[in-house]
Amino acid sequence: LDWDRWVMMAFIGFSVGVTGFMLHQITHLIAEVKWHYAEKFVIDSHVKAYLWVLGYSLVFASLAASTVAYLYPSAAGSGIPEIIGFLNGTAIRYVLNFKAFIVKFFSCACAVGSGMPVGPEGPMIHMGGIIGSGLSQCKSRTFRCTLPFFERFRNPEDRRNFTSAGAGAGVAAAFSSPVGGLLFAMEEVSSFWSDKMSWMTFFCCMVATFTADFFNTAFGSFKIGKNFGLFQTDKYILFQVTKGIPVNVIMFIPAVALGVLGGLLGSAFTIMNVKICRTRIKLTEHVIKKPLLQKTVSFLEPILITVIFTTISVYLPIAFDCKANVCPSNATYAAAHRPTLHPLDPHRHKRAGFFESEHSYDDKKHLYVDPSDPMFDQIRDVCNNSKFTYKVEPNLPHLGCKISNNIKGAYTNKSLDHNGHTYHFNDFNEISVLLNVPGADAIRHLFSRQTHLQFDYIPLLVVFPIYFIMACWAAGSSVSSGFVVPMLFIGGVYGRIVGRAAVDIFGETSEDDYWRWVDPGAFALIGAASFFGGVSRLTMSLTVIMIELTNDVLFLLPIMVTIMVSKWVADYITHPLYHSLLELKCMPFLPNEPVIVDNKQTVINLEQYQAQEVMASPVCTIKTVESVKELAQLLTETDHGGFPVVTHDKETDHYVSYGIIGRTELYIILCSKSISSAADSQSEVLVSPKLTYQEVSQVKGTLDLGEVFDSLNSLANDQRYQHVHVNLSPFINKSAPNIDQNFSLHRTYLVFRTLGLRHLTVVDRNNRVVGMITRKDLMGYNLEKKLDVHGRNKASKEE
Amino acid sequence: LDWDRWVMMAFIGFSVGVTGFMLHQITHLIAEVKWHYAEKFVIDSHVKAYLWVLGYSLVFASLAASTVAYLYPSAAGSGIPEIIGFLNGTAIRYVLNFKAFIVKFFSCACAVGSGMPVGPEGPMIHMGGIIGSGLSQCKSRTFRCTLPFFERFRNPEDRRNFTSAGAGAGVAAAFSSPVGGLLFAMEEVSSFWSDKMSWMTFFCCMVATFTADFFNTAFGSFKIGKNFGLFQTDKYILFQVTKGIPVNVIMFIPAVALGVLGGLLGSAFTIMNVKICRTRIKLTEHVIKKPLLQKTVSFLEPILITVIFTTISVYLPIAFDCKANVCPSNATYAAAHRPTLHPLDPHRHKRAGFFESEHSYDDKKHLYVDPSDPMFDQIRDVCNNSKFTYKVEPNLPHLGCKISNNIKGAYTNKSLDHNGHTYHFNDFNEISVLLNVPGADAIRHLFSRQTHLQFDYIPLLVVFPIYFIMACWAAGSSVSSGFVVPMLFIGGVYGRIVGRAAVDIFGETSEDDYWRWVDPGAFALIGAASFFGGVSRLTMSLTVIMIELTNDVLFLLPIMVTIMVSKWVADYITHPLYHSLLELKCMPFLPNEPVIVDNKQTVINLEQYQAQEVMASPVCTIKTVESVKELAQLLTETDHGGFPVVTHDKETDHYVSYGIIGRTELYIILCSKSISSAADSQSEVLVSPKLTYQEVSQVKGTLDLGEVFDSLNSLANDQRYQHVHVNLSPFINKSAPNIDQNFSLHRTYLVFRTLGLRHLTVVDRNNRVVGMITRKDLMGYNLEKKLDVHGRNKASKEE
Repeated sequence: LDWDRWVMMAFIGFSVGVTGFMLHQITHLIAEVKWHYAEKFVIDSHVKAYLWVLGYSLVFASLAASTVAYLYPSAAGSGIPEIIGFLNGTAIRYVLNFKAFIVKFFSCACAVGSGMPVGPEGPMIHMGGIIGSGLSQCKSRTFRCTLPFFERFRNPEDRRNFTSAGAGAGVAAAFSSPVGGLLFAMEEVSSFWSDKMSWMTFFCCMVATFTADFFNTAFGSFKIGKNFGLFQTDKYILFQVTKGIPVNVIMFIPAVALGVLGGLLGSAFTIMNVKICRTRIKLTEHVIKKPLLQKTVSFLEPILITVIFTTISVYLPIAFDCKANVCPSNATYAAAHRPTLHPLDPHRHKRAGFFESEHSYDDKKHLYVDPSDPMFDQIRDVCNNSKFTYKVEPNLPHLGCKISNNIKGAYTNKSLDHNGHTYHFNDFNEISVLLNVPGADAIRHLFSRQTHLQFDYIPLLVVFPIYFIMACWAAGSSVSSGFVVPMLFIGGVYGRIVGRAAVDIFGETSEDDYWRWVDPGAFALIGAASFFGGVSRLTMSLTVIMIELTNDVLFLLPIMVTIMVSKWVADYITHPLYHSLLELKCMPFLPNEPVIVDNKQTVINLEQYQAQEVMASPVCTIKTVESVKELAQLLTETDHGGFPVVTHDKETDHYVSYGIIGRTELYIILCSKSISSAADSQSEVLVSPKLTYQEVSQVKGTLDLGEVFDSLNSLANDQRYQHVHVNLSPFINKSAPNIDQNFSLHRTYLVFRTLGLRHLTVVDRNNRVVGMITRKDLMGYNLEKKLDVHGRNKASKEE
Repeated sequence: LDWDRWVMMAFIGFSVGVTGFMLHQITHLIAEVKWHYAEKFVIDSHVKAYLWVLGYSLVFASLAASTVAYLYPSAAGSGIPEIIGFLNGTAIRYVLNFKAFIVKFFSCACAVGSGMPVGPEGPMIHMGGIIGSGLSQCKSRTFRCTLPFFERFRNPEDRRNFTSAGAGAGVAAAFSSPVGGLLFAMEEVSSFWSDKMSWMTFFCCMVATFTADFFNTAFGSFKIGKNFGLFQTDKYILFQVTKGIPVNVIMFIPAVALGVLGGLLGSAFTIMNVKICRTRIKLTEHVIKKPLLQKTVSFLEPILITVIFTTISVYLPIAFDCKANVCPSNATYAAAHRPTLHPLDPHRHKRAGFFESEHSYDDKKHLYVDPSDPMFDQIRDVCNNSKFTYKVEPNLPHLGCKISNNIKGAYTNKSLDHNGHTYHFNDFNEISVLLNVPGADAIRHLFSRQTHLQFDYIPLLVVFPIYFIMACWAAGSSVSSGFVVPMLFIGGVYGRIVGRAAVDIFGETSEDDYWRWVDPGAFALIGAASFFGGVSRLTMSLTVIMIELTNDVLFLLPIMVTIMVSKWVADYITHPLYHSLLELKCMPFLPNEPVIVDNKQTVINLEQYQAQEVMASPVCTIKTVESVKELAQLLTETDHGGFPVVTHDKETDHYVSYGIIGRTELYIILCSKSISSAADSQSEVLVSPKLTYQEVSQVKGTLDLGEVFDSLNSLANDQRYQHVHVNLSPFINKSAPNIDQNFSLHRTYLVFRTLGLRHLTVVDRNNRVVGMITRKDLMGYNLEKKLDVHGRNKASKEE
């Protein structure tokens, strides 16, 4: 039945998937080069490494900032509020076009690659929305072209549906989380949803995930790897959990605690971010008047952030001692179980090095050492010395470790060849692990399990405020960037702190199933979910995204609990961040249900009010037959988007409501040839323009507002058109619902919102038009004003 | 703000969770006892075992059937269509009450325990719905009591919301799948949904899963185990996948193939099930006239099914040779990797037996044998002999294996004590593995991975049609049962067949990551998803349920693909099973969007039609002031649920639409004291009854239809009430939307459906009531009739 729709969905999904793949590879490549050379230069001197990192970061940060600040300011930020606003029914210009896509992609790739505390997920959602909107319409204002395909999708409903499917696909491609993408589109992005939609979006998200995963697992930094066609879990599952931990009922206590923390810190983040944005707007729009200076300030802000953040991330590690990483995680873990190390069997452990032998897919690592090896005793000493038995991951970064300071100087940062095996002895620096790697890698380190003592309190407590403030500042500066990665990072850090405390309380009893839940990595995961939840207030989509991100279903219940709690706590304090940003950007957003709060913080019951109390009145009505001149005057003098049409009823001699006509339709009718050809007749003339659906939709696509205004003006001022009357009947929407003026306001809101209306005509008992309700009339602040909620409340108090 | 609502949700979730726990434990206990003794008796003689199994099954089957057939026929089947119908807005009696719950629970526990090819999940959903509805209303007709709590939930909207939350919690508890439950409630069960709802349902499902998992992991057959409070994955994750397989792109070819198969077989199942149900209805309702005989036939049907199915499941295995299970799965797997077995290290392998040594939580099993063991060579011979290196699971059932027939007689079904270890040598029978265990266990065997050759073609091909037909027959007979387990079973069987074919084509190359996807267990999982999808047409909830059931996120994409394909194929052939059953049960279900198909199988565009073409006309209208006698007459003579109220407009001298009043409200007004006290006045009198909201809702709860009818009759026939007029104004719903008669039918449908209306008044241009549209008028068959779709079509053909 709907083959074209499915093809379009597949097409959108594929394009979003490819976009996700390109973005991932580019950011990865940029970041890889930076830290690769930094590690080389640091051997010579720290300053050299610092200058390299700073210079490199600045190049990309300035690329990211300049494109946005000078070329396309609307591409700043994540773009999610804009998509939400668009799908709620607000027309927003410059957001869903090809230029926005290009700038967004370029700026986001540079910003994330430069190492700023931002993530690529928000822009992916916006770009997905642009792709969904652009491909489905098969036309572009930028290119001034309209392709002759998929014409039946050129209507607001289909455009909306494809846009939200594209946004969902963006999430799906960014997190390789198809169900999460679908649910995100449903829960957060879309305001209107139908069963059919969810099935189509499901398909679109599936294709996007498939495409992104397929390419991402085949390529690494644009170099093709082995196993083409194999979906390698370590490559597409961002924060894969390989060591499942059974959940213990006691675990729900820290989950609730982390939820409360997440709610508090999440609202703090929201409030702070909104304050920063307000200050920025005040500064750039009111204090500085010159446009070029405004742009330059916008450009310099991300540069400043980059300089500060880079300096901190390179010099902060020096302040901290490095930890020796002689016995990596599982080796230590195994050693903790059995006081003696296992004898090495060369037949079985072909790849066995000193630290690990991966002998099967399950990535079970054991420490096998040949007892006859002269180093055996030495190694055992090292591993049994409690000072060194940190349970840590292998191969952690050691940038910032001073060579002379190393605890076991003989081994540090050196390799030892022995018996044909190479033994690596690495130091690592806790701050480096968090700040000197790309954000996603740092989160992976935070989430790593059975690494109980990898991070100490002090480094975590130092990194936390720095990253919190920098991320809060960066999210909203004029680069194209999202804050999912920063949210997971911040949540992971405080989760890890709580987890570390739990380890100190309960001890490291990781060998016992019953106590294995005391794992800071698991706490970091829950913390990340709580902070993400506290900021975004997503529920089910967030749960599914967290599961799909980590590939670990076991933690479903604690994650759900922490998300619930953090939402409760945060909802008590402030609005979700996306909604705050919507308000900040002055986008009229209509939530599902009206919530008007009066002075006393109690919710007003809108059932007590009537539709007539908020309607706009009097209304400019149009008769079914009107003179061209008057119509043109009406259009030039007002800027309403739609007009109620009335017709004369002979029986009652009233003008009664007949339907609604849109501004654009009126434009097209007035500009049609049949009108201009009738102008020269001297007597009264009635024109019935004949326009096919095709013609109308074609004109709609290429409407130039300036031209239209000029031609309307000439019509309005030309006396000849006084006599030309036009019959509007065929163009009137007779299926526009209208309501009685005594309708309860609550019900009015629901009718307006549920049916997705733009105009709602209010009539009296005799079906005469008495008012009009539009989106603006139903906005919270407007309701408060019109109903005089605060005044009434005061009055009732005084009584 | 809404603390009471959250408390209620928690309460519902907890109760549903406990119900799920009880049901799980009881069915488990019943099944365990049966097969435990069967294995004992079969050593004596096969007939003895058969008689035991048959007798035992018959006891429980007759308990299950008799309660439903004789006590409460509405408890038959899964109850999901009833819940869907109720939430769509149809009032269904005897479905949401306490008696239904009790019968449902008892019958379902017995039916599942007896070994019929049915599952407990459908009834869990129904019971969840009953709990949600019952607890939230705090009143019961069965007990004729109304508790003074949560009175504000006693309205249709809240009742609906709590019912769907309860149904979602039922899924969540049955599958320990909280997100799946939420999505199921959203996608399939509910017709109306809001953002707030999804958050609340999320919480409810979370609590239900938590409760069920918490108890299920602590108890086994009602005996408390160790590790109380630990969520043991093997106990609550029904079909846990422990061996992740990376997905290969080639895998999507069989996934599509299985999707096509699933679509075809799923529709075959649906069509067959509906045919059987139709025949059953014809037989019991039309052919047999005596009620008692009808009931007895209903009772005997499940008994017959049990006899046939039990006989087959006990005697069929005998027809097949048993396979020797000397080297269980992982042992063999390890052996295939390395030609020599590992030396046994008694220090490390404390629990090491012959076959497996679980030395860590990750359930990695190796075969460690002491080389100095005199049995070593013997064992190696056995394991290296290709005839015995089936990759199978350990400890499979061997009921039906003839002892004399065993291939390695010396070892079969015996234990050998050696060097302090016990070595078990078991045969297993492929049919036994599928039919002589509870359904969920059989599915677990089908899904087991790295057991490439565990099932051969012939046994699978024999079991498939038998189970397909029996499950199709049993689903709908008069026991309380669902068909989720049968669906997964059937899908698993044909998935395994396809998987086996893949193994024969590509070979058993399970050591290579790239080829590991050729695993019949993985194919069985995909097959199960495809069949489930083909029957139910669920998309996102099914995907999430499959993931949560197996705890394996890796297979997300293939599962999504197969579900998509099977839905496409099946949608092309027939309706989803639940919707077919709704139709069969004559429940008026309004889908989201109207789809009317004419003779030529093309969809009719309802935009071409107008509201007046389907409205019911003329209408019984009520004036704002009416005489009591006439009102009573109206109520007794008609059975409409609501009446449009008109008022006289002086300006136009018309009676114009004023609002709507419900039948129940009219009852209550007419039965109020102020009316009866006014009866004795001789002159015309106008009564304005004063009823508070409390009074109205209290009366509503205890309304007895018989009494009401009597009192109405007396009012209608009493001349005294001719003079008593009642002022209805305060009781009229003035916020009932009405539409113009020229409204497009498509739009009318959307308004009706989206706003969840029961009555929609149709007015003319002057706001005079000209018709009424109710649910019935918008049903597919009614639209077809009224619009004369087929006739018009014929006419246009003849032209």
